[in-house]
Amino acid sequence: MAETIFFNGGARGKWKVTKQSAIKGTGLAGVGFIDRGVTVDTTASWTLSGVTSNLRYTNAAEKKLLDATPSVLAKPGATCAALIPITKSAAWWAMAQDERRAVLEDKSRHIAIGSDYLAVVSRQLVHCRDQPGAQFDFLTWFEFRPENEGRFDELLRKLRVTAEWGFIEREVELRLERVS
Amino acid sequence: MAETIFFNGGARGKWKVTKQSAIKGTGLAGVGFIDRGVTVDTTASWTLSGVTSNLRYTNAAEKKLLDATPSVLAKPGATCAALIPITKSAAWWAMAQDERRAVLEDKSRHIAIGSDYLAVVSRQLVHCRDQPGAQFDFLTWFEFRPENEGRFDELLRKLRVTAEWGFIEREVELRLERVS
Repeated sequence: MAETIFFNGGARGKWKVTKQSAIKGTGLAGVGFIDRGVTVDTTASWTLSGVTSNLRYTNAAEKKLLDATPSVLAKPGATCAALIPITKSAAWWAMAQDERRAVLEDKSRHIAIGSDYLAVVSRQLVHCRDQPGAQFDFLTWFEFRPENEGRFDELLRKLRVTAEWGFIEREVELRLERVS
Repeated sequence: MAETIFFNGGARGKWKVTKQSAIKGTGLAGVGFIDRGVTVDTTASWTLSGVTSNLRYTNAAEKKLLDATPSVLAKPGATCAALIPITKSAAWWAMAQDERRAVLEDKSRHIAIGSDYLAVVSRQLVHCRDQPGAQFDFLTWFEFRPENEGRFDELLRKLRVTAEWGFIEREVELRLERVS
């Protein structure tokens, strides 16, 4: 069923932290490296974990488009990454499914905007809201080639001005560079 | 965030098992009692657990109707209960959100059928698909007064002939009677 993904933040890992920022709300303790994998590192300063899951908002037409450009992680040239943990507000989660979809796509074009970057930004959505004790709702992960960093910045800028982002109450951003 | 609910099946608990059936797929080891709560009982024969979560399909109009008749558990006269763990197929989970909603409500009227029984059947939906190691997708829990058992049977009969139930690959049913 669900695959559990761990992000261990500490003194070792495949990904060196080049910049760490608290975008909204409380940040995370500063770390030098992120080790992303399927096991917890008990020596890490902190570990965030969650699971891959089924699609929650994507409709059939959008899914067809996404399936045509699968998100492939660990591409040889994709030496840049970003880990962006986010938490949405209680008001978001109290909405009915159609109300959340309306904000996410009809008003904010989240899926449509993301689709414009499928070719240059690989991504993975890790769900943690339903995991006991989780401090974030989602751990979003992105990998891209260094020359596409500007496009990734553009993607973040577009999403962060949407109506959907008004429901984000905590967001941390770590920019990473592959070192092994 | 999520509240974890445990169903401990074994030799003790507030709920005596009056009937245990494998409706579809593999059953569960026979137990005498179910202890439902927020902690694991390490002496239990088996423990199923999961979390309460946000609505996944319900739209605003349906939510308004549900909110008007809140599901209250542990009502004094509601001495009958049922625990029905279910697992849906990979084909179900591979569908886009609108496709799943279309089967669940447009074709199967799951929410509409359930709404007809709100006054006599209290219920709780516990999600476990996204919990590491879970053997079911959902643990569905129902409480009702003994005189409403026929209505509960009717609810199950109606749901089990729907298109949605064609996607259920495992279903176990335990009927219970409150003993303490």
